[in-house]
Amino acid sequence: MKSTDVAIIGGSAAGLMAAVTLIKRNPEKKVTVIRNVEKTPVPCGIPYIYGTLKDVNKNIIPDQNFLNMGIDIMCLEVESIDRKHNSIAFVDGTTLEYDKLILGNGSKPFVPPIKGIDLDNVFVVEKDPSRLQALYTALQTAKNVVVVGGGFIGVEMAEQIALMAGADAAANNTLNVSIIEMLPHCLMMACEEEFCVKAEGELEKLGINVMTNRGVQEIKGQGTVNAVQLADGSELDADLVLVCIGATPNIELAEKCGLQADPRQGVLVNEYMQTKDPDIYAAGDCATKTSFITGKSSGIRLASVACSEGMIAASNLYNDSKRKNLGALGAFATKVGAHSIAAAGLTSKAAHDEGIEVVIGEAITPNRHPASLPDCIIEMKAKLLFRKDNGRIIGGHVIGGESTADMVNAISVAIQTGATAEELATMQYATHPLLTASPLFYHIMLAAENGAIQLTNASMTKKFNKEAA
Amino acid sequence: MKSTDVAIIGGSAAGLMAAVTLIKRNPEKKVTVIRNVEKTPVPCGIPYIYGTLKDVNKNIIPDQNFLNMGIDIMCLEVESIDRKHNSIAFVDGTTLEYDKLILGNGSKPFVPPIKGIDLDNVFVVEKDPSRLQALYTALQTAKNVVVVGGGFIGVEMAEQIALMAGADAAANNTLNVSIIEMLPHCLMMACEEEFCVKAEGELEKLGINVMTNRGVQEIKGQGTVNAVQLADGSELDADLVLVCIGATPNIELAEKCGLQADPRQGVLVNEYMQTKDPDIYAAGDCATKTSFITGKSSGIRLASVACSEGMIAASNLYNDSKRKNLGALGAFATKVGAHSIAAAGLTSKAAHDEGIEVVIGEAITPNRHPASLPDCIIEMKAKLLFRKDNGRIIGGHVIGGESTADMVNAISVAIQTGATAEELATMQYATHPLLTASPLFYHIMLAAENGAIQLTNASMTKKFNKEAA
Repeated sequence: MKSTDVAIIGGSAAGLMAAVTLIKRNPEKKVTVIRNVEKTPVPCGIPYIYGTLKDVNKNIIPDQNFLNMGIDIMCLEVESIDRKHNSIAFVDGTTLEYDKLILGNGSKPFVPPIKGIDLDNVFVVEKDPSRLQALYTALQTAKNVVVVGGGFIGVEMAEQIALMAGADAAANNTLNVSIIEMLPHCLMMACEEEFCVKAEGELEKLGINVMTNRGVQEIKGQGTVNAVQLADGSELDADLVLVCIGATPNIELAEKCGLQADPRQGVLVNEYMQTKDPDIYAAGDCATKTSFITGKSSGIRLASVACSEGMIAASNLYNDSKRKNLGALGAFATKVGAHSIAAAGLTSKAAHDEGIEVVIGEAITPNRHPASLPDCIIEMKAKLLFRKDNGRIIGGHVIGGESTADMVNAISVAIQTGATAEELATMQYATHPLLTASPLFYHIMLAAENGAIQLTNASMTKKFNKEAA
Repeated sequence: MKSTDVAIIGGSAAGLMAAVTLIKRNPEKKVTVIRNVEKTPVPCGIPYIYGTLKDVNKNIIPDQNFLNMGIDIMCLEVESIDRKHNSIAFVDGTTLEYDKLILGNGSKPFVPPIKGIDLDNVFVVEKDPSRLQALYTALQTAKNVVVVGGGFIGVEMAEQIALMAGADAAANNTLNVSIIEMLPHCLMMACEEEFCVKAEGELEKLGINVMTNRGVQEIKGQGTVNAVQLADGSELDADLVLVCIGATPNIELAEKCGLQADPRQGVLVNEYMQTKDPDIYAAGDCATKTSFITGKSSGIRLASVACSEGMIAASNLYNDSKRKNLGALGAFATKVGAHSIAAAGLTSKAAHDEGIEVVIGEAITPNRHPASLPDCIIEMKAKLLFRKDNGRIIGGHVIGGESTADMVNAISVAIQTGATAEELATMQYATHPLLTASPLFYHIMLAAENGAIQLTNASMTKKFNKEAA
């Protein structure tokens, strides 16, 4: 009977992060990653297969890096977990004994129970190269593509599909791409409204038909899709439909072996990523989440969260001083046309919905100094959200050039260290003419100072009202 | 007699930041910025006049932005400050009364007392458009340019001078540019050694002759420079010499009115940026500094420090809750050829010299994922320094693409909030295929985890040694 020290089910973000962490921290342990696909696509890279890389095989996580570290990789479908005997049974009848097990088997695309969903040429985005290739092949002859869902996967897929045909094709209407989004704007779960509008503008420049506030009623066709009927009764021609409306955690294996799990929230874990079985941990999309900001149950499923959780789970297996998962933050970046957009923490809408009073500090300045320098983006914008009660930053949003994600990571660090507007306003930031705004107007500093001033005024008003009362 | 509420002497980083802060925080106050030049160059942009903008006037801080805010700007040379009567006397005989005064009159290039320093065509980098134009004109006919000093100004100037003639000219030896640096490497005060080597490689690709471990003995010529003699006796042909070996604070005005000042350290201020005169504050290059990391006197004079100090000084003038200056950090970025380099906090050499024991966590990974994406820099590197005693980050260095400065600002925030390797390893960071490394290998996370592992091992060894003893 085969055995390993640590079995990790899942070979994407959480699983690989867990494996790497273990090999570095506990090099004496045998670590085995188990996955049900021959090759693992880079999950966030999937959209860029279509319009940029133009090859499914250029978006594969290279196994060699991990094999070189001494990690075992098995490509087998797991049938069940025998918790009593610490053993995994595979569909081919073989088994693998483990000392510890990490469940990192992710999520699957949510498939809505609408009529026509099982017609040919209706796709979801699966982390399986053969399915991604099937989509690629189908797209090559498609004329009317309808993307259902304008979250970041839907938006990135729509953009890349439009680019796949060449910008000319879209402009000449030889390929029609539409996005159907139920909310008032695309990207609205993660981004500030005005940033969503900018992204939609970029999509429209590519000839993409952006339809918001619209729901899908039915997918029509005979054998193969030929139209999408919206809730308002209107119909769109469609020879290919791509459904991108979220993911549901893979909980079947966990449930089958008696671990607690919720179909929407995932496999129940505590703050150390432990299930109720002392030998089984879970991390990433398959595991339950709480929000870093509110402490409430959270639906944030991102690779950044999965990596953090994978690392925490792995380092807790054999170490006395346990790492704690402080919760999912929602650190996120995307690029749509000319705009890169990144965010961490709450949007102002989410803060409002949570009943958290905030002040918002903004900065709109060029991302080079002087602005006469080449490649300057004149209106790079940062928007920071600070709690009115204690001045701490709980959200940050940036739209601009290539450095947008890294700027948001400065904000992300600030949120996760509990920094206040006051602190962020007077910190020192590296600036350079060819790389950033002027030091007088560096986005985080300027937006934080604008927030700090409002917080001062708010507390003065409060003090004044108190004295006047 | 003219009067103002707040007089600010100096119209560059510290002065303008102070003015903007006042106008926003105390809009009822009249704020007057006084400077001795008609136009203020963007200080960090000066090198890019020569090889990129090709026009001194494209690198001017636009007054209109500040006038629109309601800030007064006076272009006059200050003769003296009458502290008894809160009044400034100008060289034209006029005066200006003030309620509060901020000294932000900066520094001047250090001019070494060597023979030949006053020959024609020997320049320093002055924040005066007419002097910058004179240098531009002289460069247009120069054949052999020697830049003395390989700090970041020297390196940026040398690169841009080489570009000014066109890359071909440098390659064809129609323009010879040399850098003379006393230390073993250029940029060594701010950057890790291996990053300095990369920068030197980029300079050499442009045909620049990089001469390190070399000092200048004498500048030779009759009327006009024709050679530079090095300390080892060798000589370099030179028809233009540019001296970039640091700056000395402008303290004359302060000294003249009886404020304490040191020729090297600057005008003495406390942590609130106050001089001993309750109505006079100082900020930026002219003011004394302490190190954020060590608390010792510091020579770090950067625009980022000046802006932070200008903001702190200005917000302390009329507010009860005072902002504290926590010290100069050294957040810095530059771009040399294809490499952008940024740093915050200590180098490993500086940490060693200070007797601070550190562990170093490194990450070298592509800045896109998958690495097959266009414009991917395969070896973007981050190097983080953590204190061995408490795991806190005290330095961070990044070499890579356009986002380098913003990535260092995440590190800068981490240093200034006292984050540890443990905390930084498990935080969540925004990543995106077209903008960053993979979430599995995001530079800050990976380098922090590598540091955290060493810290764990070090504390285990310590514990073991203790138990064994």
